[in-house]
Amino acid sequence: MKTVVRWEIFELEYSGKLEGNPFLDYHIYAEFEGEHETKKVEGFYDGAGIYRVRFMPSFEGRYKYHVYGTFSKESYEGEIQVTAPVNTNNHGPVGVVEKRYLEYVDGSPYYSVGTTCYAWIHQPEEIQKETLETLQQSCFNKIRFWLFPKYYQYNLKEPVMYPYKRGIKRGQDPKRLEKHLDMKFHTDAKIEDITDFDFYDFNEEFFQHVDRQISRLCGLGIEADIILMHPYDKWGFANMTRECDLVYIRYVVARYGAYRNVWWSLANEYDLMTKTEQDWEEIAAAIKECDCYGRLTSIHNCMKFYDYSRDWITHCSMQRIDLYRHVESTEEYLELYNKPVVWDEIAYEGNIEMGWGNIAGEELVRRFWEASLRGGYAGHGETYVHEKDILWWSHGGILHGNSEPRIDFLKKILEETPGKYLKNSIGISDEVVAIPYTTATKDFNPWIGPKQYYDYEIHYYGFGRPSYRDFDLPEDSQYKIEVIDTWNMTVTDMGIHSGYTRVLLPAKQYMAVRLIKQQSSLI
Amino acid sequence: MKTVVRWEIFELEYSGKLEGNPFLDYHIYAEFEGEHETKKVEGFYDGAGIYRVRFMPSFEGRYKYHVYGTFSKESYEGEIQVTAPVNTNNHGPVGVVEKRYLEYVDGSPYYSVGTTCYAWIHQPEEIQKETLETLQQSCFNKIRFWLFPKYYQYNLKEPVMYPYKRGIKRGQDPKRLEKHLDMKFHTDAKIEDITDFDFYDFNEEFFQHVDRQISRLCGLGIEADIILMHPYDKWGFANMTRECDLVYIRYVVARYGAYRNVWWSLANEYDLMTKTEQDWEEIAAAIKECDCYGRLTSIHNCMKFYDYSRDWITHCSMQRIDLYRHVESTEEYLELYNKPVVWDEIAYEGNIEMGWGNIAGEELVRRFWEASLRGGYAGHGETYVHEKDILWWSHGGILHGNSEPRIDFLKKILEETPGKYLKNSIGISDEVVAIPYTTATKDFNPWIGPKQYYDYEIHYYGFGRPSYRDFDLPEDSQYKIEVIDTWNMTVTDMGIHSGYTRVLLPAKQYMAVRLIKQQSSLI
Repeated sequence: MKTVVRWEIFELEYSGKLEGNPFLDYHIYAEFEGEHETKKVEGFYDGAGIYRVRFMPSFEGRYKYHVYGTFSKESYEGEIQVTAPVNTNNHGPVGVVEKRYLEYVDGSPYYSVGTTCYAWIHQPEEIQKETLETLQQSCFNKIRFWLFPKYYQYNLKEPVMYPYKRGIKRGQDPKRLEKHLDMKFHTDAKIEDITDFDFYDFNEEFFQHVDRQISRLCGLGIEADIILMHPYDKWGFANMTRECDLVYIRYVVARYGAYRNVWWSLANEYDLMTKTEQDWEEIAAAIKECDCYGRLTSIHNCMKFYDYSRDWITHCSMQRIDLYRHVESTEEYLELYNKPVVWDEIAYEGNIEMGWGNIAGEELVRRFWEASLRGGYAGHGETYVHEKDILWWSHGGILHGNSEPRIDFLKKILEETPGKYLKNSIGISDEVVAIPYTTATKDFNPWIGPKQYYDYEIHYYGFGRPSYRDFDLPEDSQYKIEVIDTWNMTVTDMGIHSGYTRVLLPAKQYMAVRLIKQQSSLI
Repeated sequence: MKTVVRWEIFELEYSGKLEGNPFLDYHIYAEFEGEHETKKVEGFYDGAGIYRVRFMPSFEGRYKYHVYGTFSKESYEGEIQVTAPVNTNNHGPVGVVEKRYLEYVDGSPYYSVGTTCYAWIHQPEEIQKETLETLQQSCFNKIRFWLFPKYYQYNLKEPVMYPYKRGIKRGQDPKRLEKHLDMKFHTDAKIEDITDFDFYDFNEEFFQHVDRQISRLCGLGIEADIILMHPYDKWGFANMTRECDLVYIRYVVARYGAYRNVWWSLANEYDLMTKTEQDWEEIAAAIKECDCYGRLTSIHNCMKFYDYSRDWITHCSMQRIDLYRHVESTEEYLELYNKPVVWDEIAYEGNIEMGWGNIAGEELVRRFWEASLRGGYAGHGETYVHEKDILWWSHGGILHGNSEPRIDFLKKILEETPGKYLKNSIGISDEVVAIPYTTATKDFNPWIGPKQYYDYEIHYYGFGRPSYRDFDLPEDSQYKIEVIDTWNMTVTDMGIHSGYTRVLLPAKQYMAVRLIKQQSSLI
């Protein structure tokens, strides 16, 4: 009997019908029955008469399965034995806990520090290789990217592969395609650029390539935040009919849903697309119907947040809607939506002409700290002008900036949190004071005091430059005090203190102070 | 006949009654009648049997006057001849134009760049002298300060003089005084610190000193934004009875209202005081009643703006109510209140422990640019830790920071504005694009374009670091393009351009680009 590692993929492959359009005309299903779960999964056609079914077991032990469908006159049965992970990277998929935080299903904390390489899977092979090498050496544990290729500034080359085969065979609506020529992001696109892709005929080679890349990301412990739709298009992929959209969605979910590192993002900047709310809700319903694992699902905005309170949305995937205050509002959005807040776009480190792509590394790292200490998550991107127009944010490649090591440093600090997750303890103040989420917040006015001290506190001063901060610690407790230079990545032990204590600081930006109450046995 | 310069002070001095409490028991009035105005002004008692009346003529030409009141059995008459200013600093008082901007009454633009030395008039003489020397060499044309002395962190010394004499003679309400011991800003104040000041008996020496300082500021071309009340008190001045407050207000207005550089600020951080809205409205009504010149009047907040739409408020005197977005909302407040927006407190350059007093010079200057280009005004302050606790924000002295020369540079750029005042031309963008207020804003969506160009534009990129910006200028016009480094204070001429133009920038923060359309005769 075949053994499968828990949360890894078990894949079955069968030959089946070839006539007509196998992507559309036939189905393949499998039912898996284990001690703790029974799942019906849909498979997909992979070209050349091959049908596949993928399954991710969520539990250890024996499963029976049964494969059937219109793809073949035959049906199949079998058994697998699911074993515990040996790979320490495999903590299962990421889910939501406490309606606030992200966590691996095995209970390991997941401190999301994401990055963005929108079109990396569409770049020449050597750049994709380089991207994976860069990711391997980086701290990032999530990457946002698009399945569809990109047409936009710095992204005017054709992709290496397309998701569809050429030659309209049926159903494409040329009228709907023409519409997108009005859109602002491709004013120089012409009707003749819109080639004759058949939105009912997937290019399996492309999707096989994506299989490999998702799998590689999984091996690196990186969540694949797959963005299904986006407006930066010139091939018509952004403007398919509802029917074609749903055919695409079902195919993608059937194909990639079993990867434990997959997240669904319905769209990048949904509000720049010509789709209606009804369209999005139908797409969301299709995902919910097909995705038996309930993968993390969201939708990303440009100017206006989608209604994140919708049932199908597992977490907020936010782009800042204000240039000056965004991650600093994390608590408000946590409260409003009662879901984890992931700041996927808060401007990128770089120096391109546009404001969303030319902030300093220092400022990006500040935004990471603000988001993280307030109980949210932040995302990185890099947009440095490059002689060959290879910008990390879209193409991947190598990093040129200086924020990534600092984000790594932040991640290590986060990993030291007692009780896994942080929250901001006070509402109005000139600092963020992060405490473990398990700590009951004490009711006091930080303007009046006296300050109440928790067992673990990180005080972050952002762009402020205090020369010192005073702590009126309890006389009867001892606190280890550390000064954290979040930019220079140092933690300086300031000793053990009780009572009124002045902590000297270097009057620089981006400093923090950590207080750790010592166990009474140590006193 | 005595000659007086327009907008300068004409002062009359008389001996009068001494018995009882002359501050309270007698009045002195004067009526001035000129060709263009008739004013009734109230005078004040100045100690030692001397009563004074001050008058600022708003017009040239001959005035007759008549002095009368209970101060004396006598009444007096006379004439003055008002002549045009010869001092180029004398542009008259500052007023409001277009419900948006500040302007001298002679039509000269007033680009307000303020500073803050709250308690400078309470410091030892040599520090006050130093403050005036610093001001003289600085760009500042407004200063905010308190009449009452200050008790707060870094300000624990007794003032050189008090505004009241000691020895309760009548009317002081010890109960009301006790109240302020509950207030957070003087938790270590004790009832015995509240000495026996008589709030009906002014210390004329103190007020004479203030006369001299206001006059010196006037000579330097600096507006005196006099703050009448504030919460940082331990002597009871913040907690006088309504009656005592009004006695004080009338005295101050009678005494200082004739100085053309005087503005009234009812309070600093009114919302930290124990007074009610009714109290503030009564105080405002008293000022309005006594101040025949209609000096600029406002009230300054801590956490919550006062209702700036009130009739008596001539301009918004704002402290930021959010740490991250404030001056960037200038247009919204201009629209909301339909009055000039003066950002009097947007955090200070410095390195003290508190967030409001430890931002970088770079950030303060950025805030000045944001406020100014959006059609508002900003205020400076400096809070560097000092071995003798002399901090500019409160004590004056000398400047230690690096923002002032940059504010001066900004002021010079503002002075080059055609049509005097700027406004932001677009609502949502990654830049501010300031244009002269007289320019009709064209209706276009900056996200879609094509951009409409005005004859004069300053594009400001704030903390962004673009390597270049593209301008799709009209082919049939010529524009002078300049790159402004707002921090290094350079203006680099990039030549004359038409049509599509890429302007290379150094990918640094705090840069701006200025476009100046050339007259057709130059083409």
